Amino acid sequence: MPRYRDLTHTARPSDASRVIEPKNPLRTTDPGALEMLKVAQEQHIETVFDRFVAQQPQCGFGYKGVCCRICLAGPCRVKTQEGPGSKGICGATAYTIVSRNLVRMIAGGAASHSEHARHVLHTAHAMLEGNAPDYEIKSPEKLHKLASDLGVLTLNREVREIFKDVTEIAYEDFGRYQDRPLAFLDSQLSEQRRQKFQHTNVMPRSIDGTVTELTAQTAMGVDSDPVNLIFGGIKGSLADLGGEYIGTTFSDILFGVPKPIVSESNLGVINPKMVNIAVHGHNPVLSEMVVAAARKMKDEAKKVGAEGVNIVGICCTGNELLMREGVYLATSSASQEMAIMTGALDAMVVDIQCIYPAVQQVAECFHTKVVTTEGIMKIPGAQHIAFNAETAMGDAEKLIRIAIEAYTNRDPKKISIPSERHKLVAGFSLEALTEIFAKINPDHPISVLTDAILSGQIKGVVQMAGCNNLKRPQDESHIAILKELVKNDVFVIATGCSAGAFAKFGLMSPAAVDAYAGDGLKSFLRTLEEANPQLTTGLPLVFHIGACVDNSRGMNLLMAMAEELGVDSPKVPFAASAPEAMHEKAVAIGTFGVAMGVPVHVGTLPFLEGSDLVYGVTTQIAHDVFGGNFIFEVDPQEASKKILDALEYRSWKLRIHKQTAEKFDTQIAQVW
Amino acid sequence: MPRYRDLTHTARPSDASRVIEPKNPLRTTDPGALEMLKVAQEQHIETVFDRFVAQQPQCGFGYKGVCCRICLAGPCRVKTQEGPGSKGICGATAYTIVSRNLVRMIAGGAASHSEHARHVLHTAHAMLEGNAPDYEIKSPEKLHKLASDLGVLTLNREVREIFKDVTEIAYEDFGRYQDRPLAFLDSQLSEQRRQKFQHTNVMPRSIDGTVTELTAQTAMGVDSDPVNLIFGGIKGSLADLGGEYIGTTFSDILFGVPKPIVSESNLGVINPKMVNIAVHGHNPVLSEMVVAAARKMKDEAKKVGAEGVNIVGICCTGNELLMREGVYLATSSASQEMAIMTGALDAMVVDIQCIYPAVQQVAECFHTKVVTTEGIMKIPGAQHIAFNAETAMGDAEKLIRIAIEAYTNRDPKKISIPSERHKLVAGFSLEALTEIFAKINPDHPISVLTDAILSGQIKGVVQMAGCNNLKRPQDESHIAILKELVKNDVFVIATGCSAGAFAKFGLMSPAAVDAYAGDGLKSFLRTLEEANPQLTTGLPLVFHIGACVDNSRGMNLLMAMAEELGVDSPKVPFAASAPEAMHEKAVAIGTFGVAMGVPVHVGTLPFLEGSDLVYGVTTQIAHDVFGGNFIFEVDPQEASKKILDALEYRSWKLRIHKQTAEKFDTQIAQVW
Repeated sequence: MPRYRDLTHTARPSDASRVIEPKNPLRTTDPGALEMLKVAQEQHIETVFDRFVAQQPQCGFGYKGVCCRICLAGPCRVKTQEGPGSKGICGATAYTIVSRNLVRMIAGGAASHSEHARHVLHTAHAMLEGNAPDYEIKSPEKLHKLASDLGVLTLNREVREIFKDVTEIAYEDFGRYQDRPLAFLDSQLSEQRRQKFQHTNVMPRSIDGTVTELTAQTAMGVDSDPVNLIFGGIKGSLADLGGEYIGTTFSDILFGVPKPIVSESNLGVINPKMVNIAVHGHNPVLSEMVVAAARKMKDEAKKVGAEGVNIVGICCTGNELLMREGVYLATSSASQEMAIMTGALDAMVVDIQCIYPAVQQVAECFHTKVVTTEGIMKIPGAQHIAFNAETAMGDAEKLIRIAIEAYTNRDPKKISIPSERHKLVAGFSLEALTEIFAKINPDHPISVLTDAILSGQIKGVVQMAGCNNLKRPQDESHIAILKELVKNDVFVIATGCSAGAFAKFGLMSPAAVDAYAGDGLKSFLRTLEEANPQLTTGLPLVFHIGACVDNSRGMNLLMAMAEELGVDSPKVPFAASAPEAMHEKAVAIGTFGVAMGVPVHVGTLPFLEGSDLVYGVTTQIAHDVFGGNFIFEVDPQEASKKILDALEYRSWKLRIHKQTAEKFDTQIAQVW
Repeated sequence: MPRYRDLTHTARPSDASRVIEPKNPLRTTDPGALEMLKVAQEQHIETVFDRFVAQQPQCGFGYKGVCCRICLAGPCRVKTQEGPGSKGICGATAYTIVSRNLVRMIAGGAASHSEHARHVLHTAHAMLEGNAPDYEIKSPEKLHKLASDLGVLTLNREVREIFKDVTEIAYEDFGRYQDRPLAFLDSQLSEQRRQKFQHTNVMPRSIDGTVTELTAQTAMGVDSDPVNLIFGGIKGSLADLGGEYIGTTFSDILFGVPKPIVSESNLGVINPKMVNIAVHGHNPVLSEMVVAAARKMKDEAKKVGAEGVNIVGICCTGNELLMREGVYLATSSASQEMAIMTGALDAMVVDIQCIYPAVQQVAECFHTKVVTTEGIMKIPGAQHIAFNAETAMGDAEKLIRIAIEAYTNRDPKKISIPSERHKLVAGFSLEALTEIFAKINPDHPISVLTDAILSGQIKGVVQMAGCNNLKRPQDESHIAILKELVKNDVFVIATGCSAGAFAKFGLMSPAAVDAYAGDGLKSFLRTLEEANPQLTTGLPLVFHIGACVDNSRGMNLLMAMAEELGVDSPKVPFAASAPEAMHEKAVAIGTFGVAMGVPVHVGTLPFLEGSDLVYGVTTQIAHDVFGGNFIFEVDPQEASKKILDALEYRSWKLRIHKQTAEKFDTQIAQVW
């Protein structure tokens, strides 16, 4: 085995990413958040924007990934280029330290998505055991499709029996010890990807086992080989994808497969006349019940003088409810505190992930009640109501009563709701998209998309995803990149807080198509609309496919496109972009994107600049092995160019080969 | 729920722990290592001691646990006491950041031990499936005992059938999703501890599931409640203990239950006339095969002019082989590089954990071959021979041939082996200890120990454990504390690199009893010796109970003492000490010690000084809930006093209550 040297000099984004841009000291571009920031400044309320500024300059060792705290002999830092100070006490060099840290972030992401999925799975299991009467199978169609993917027999069987088998396989996926691949992952892959993952030894056999293995692999005195470590990380990211599939499919089965739905977004959706409850986090298991309970409890709200109960969503719980129930999306992650500062939010009910502990501090300046609901997520000072699948509706009613009571304590002088709110169309599960395409070509619906790419009408597909990260002003990069992509006729799908940004800015509306889409994209969307007269609304500029766990839907689309084109996924004009990646989940998502053969742009750098080798592996070597690669670029204009270039290259090759194939009367698949 | 304030001012060890003591710039007290350090200095070979010095001063934020790198918005640091700089960007305060970091270390420890255990388990499984012909069931007695603990039927059943059931339960323990406790943990607990863990909601149901859950719980935007987090950490540490039980018991079944055995230790065991192979790491699955192969391959070694093959152990692989095979223990973790510098080490075969990546750098200055053997552990530049249970003996032979070939490349000018070597007696599994006690009281063997405590002959039991951590000069604290304890009549058991220190210094010998034991301990040991004429050697000053995974044996002894005394474990005069804790595993071990009701001294501070609250929870609140607590003390003399005080207090209470109980003719158990 070669001894690596950290000499792979690659082009790099400048250190500009670490400097706060003076042109926007407020660190947000969201008009709703900007309005609320005035309140924060007037009332001297500390927000995430203040804390971000207070943290500058951030530690360069940590930023570059060359700080190791994996054992108590540390902390160690790579301080010099040579000599004893160039390594940790144990002798770990920069590439080892950087890759261990990176792989632990991927394990953190996989653990996060899988805990979410596990909770949905437990709920399904409790329902099937007869212990969760408030839940039901809302989509037997999705269940049948999933059962068929997993090889579960469906003929002449009760839906609940089928679901039991599927549930059992999902549980196995968490804890399998036999040398068989993760079923939920394996069943969603093309044959080429399946073989690729097997040949490169990155196919996980269980989710929990992989998280544990990676944690052990990165412990003190274990793996120091950056390539072996990063391949471990890739396995971890595929475990994450498997967990996402479980999360998405089980949520679809229990709460319905999303279909096009109209709603509104930004802080203006908070209604001064109603009891306002924000549901925040990621898990629909509780929040779906809150929505159902709210619909029943209008009268209780009226008793205290409100017109009803207004549920609004924040972050990915917001996305889940927007997709399936059309619930208003109040705001996205970086501006979560702003919702409280409207003075009209009566309760913020949180589940897991991306919830700033600071929401409680802000809430204490208002009448707002923060309520935590899951055993692994508490906030000192906040109320905790343990939410159980067994008593779901009762728990949800309890939460709403807390909000109704809090409503009576509102201080009218403190109410200040931004006017900002925008119409949007969301709900584009792959099933919904396929149905729209099928109106043009019922036998090959995905060919509608791929043909448009081959003909040059659209440039390709980009999946925009990820969080807010104040290393960039909130939403600025999401918006800038989207505008550039759609102007250049890219079909854009979006998840998570990237979708949240578009929703908040009014870019997820049919009206935005006229304003921003290039001619090709515009005509493509018009064609779809004309073929779908049943839609009561026009199609949006960007297609909301769900929460961050629903990045799995994008991978399903990628596989469908690859199948339609008869090529392996690295040849599909499909890219991804996480302009403001923040959470460990984003690191896992980006990594499986690369493994699935996608060029993945990231606008906020992971902690890896301390090793040219690791940087080179993620941006170049990964491409050689998996056909996907990371594109690190903090500047949104530059990033857009690089993403468009990646699509253009793939489309050009596809077209060339299609022409060649047609000329020689052979199939594309044969000449590749 | 209360809002915590970080105002719990508690007595603290000074910051002295962060300062290198000028009186020992070499950072080791091990005579063998000191001899080799001269070679390092003469030949300008970089060692861990140089790197430790180069890392000074270490980052204060990391050291205090107030640096957060859990998301890409960071790194964040608690920079100020108040205001926006006192929290991370998300609003996480010091107590949140400190506890998340701490809990992730515990998860790292649990993952590490369980990967080790999983490997032994896979080997057993492969053997039972007929795929690992080189392994066998060496201890059917241990298997029967374990089966009985686990409720597996044994009557009229084949040993292999019983083992299959036991193996199945162990696999379930890794991946169980049903709400049942970890079987291997649960079966080893007293009823009081079982109830305590259930009531406090810290009983894990699976190992991998717990590691994943903790990782998710500590992710960005999830738990910010330090108490909830630390209780999560305690659950993780109990998962670690469950994993250790699997590791220890399966190793005992496959390789034999240790019994008293004579051997030698320190670098002088490297034999210039033989092919020397160091086995280093933690896992006996491979190294047992290397020992077996070496015995067969004497002739091959003779062909190249050597007298035979000399296997020596390093770190816990060394302890495993010392305990069961009497293999020489060459050295412990901090001096692992020194073994190579003797110039007479032909190969270093490593498995997992505590292996400095630097061994390869040092090996490149000599003829020594470093060989990695496990898929999750590679070192750039080192040779990798994948070790498989299926081809175990063949793989082991391959490794020995690499060493034999390397032997021919030795440079005689570079050979410099320290003279330091000491006789020792090891092999004290709980079974071995019980057998010795049983010669005095066959019906109640453990009462021999507890009666000696009640009578005041000995002060109690201390389990010494843990690593080397150069924040203290290597071995200095291990030795100083041991000497103080035995002088004060404490019965000391030891594991890991603490045991390694005693072995290397000649303190694990019968001769050391005369030199260092107090009169009470001396007479207690003499009584045991007299009752055990079958022993061919005297008893040692300190009892080696195994590798770090075998800290489980100490917990078994604690449970047996509690049962014998009829009290809950926090009333047993039993303490633990990890004077030079370094690995995440040590953090997990210390934590389960506390949960099991043990006062646990740690001589190198975990990263928690940044929160008075977390410090208070671990040192005080833990005691109120679990009856055990951490004692952080860097000074070995002070530490010894505190450990002795803890034992004295418990013994005094036990004696008082025993007298009261006798007076009123009732049982101790009733008045407690």
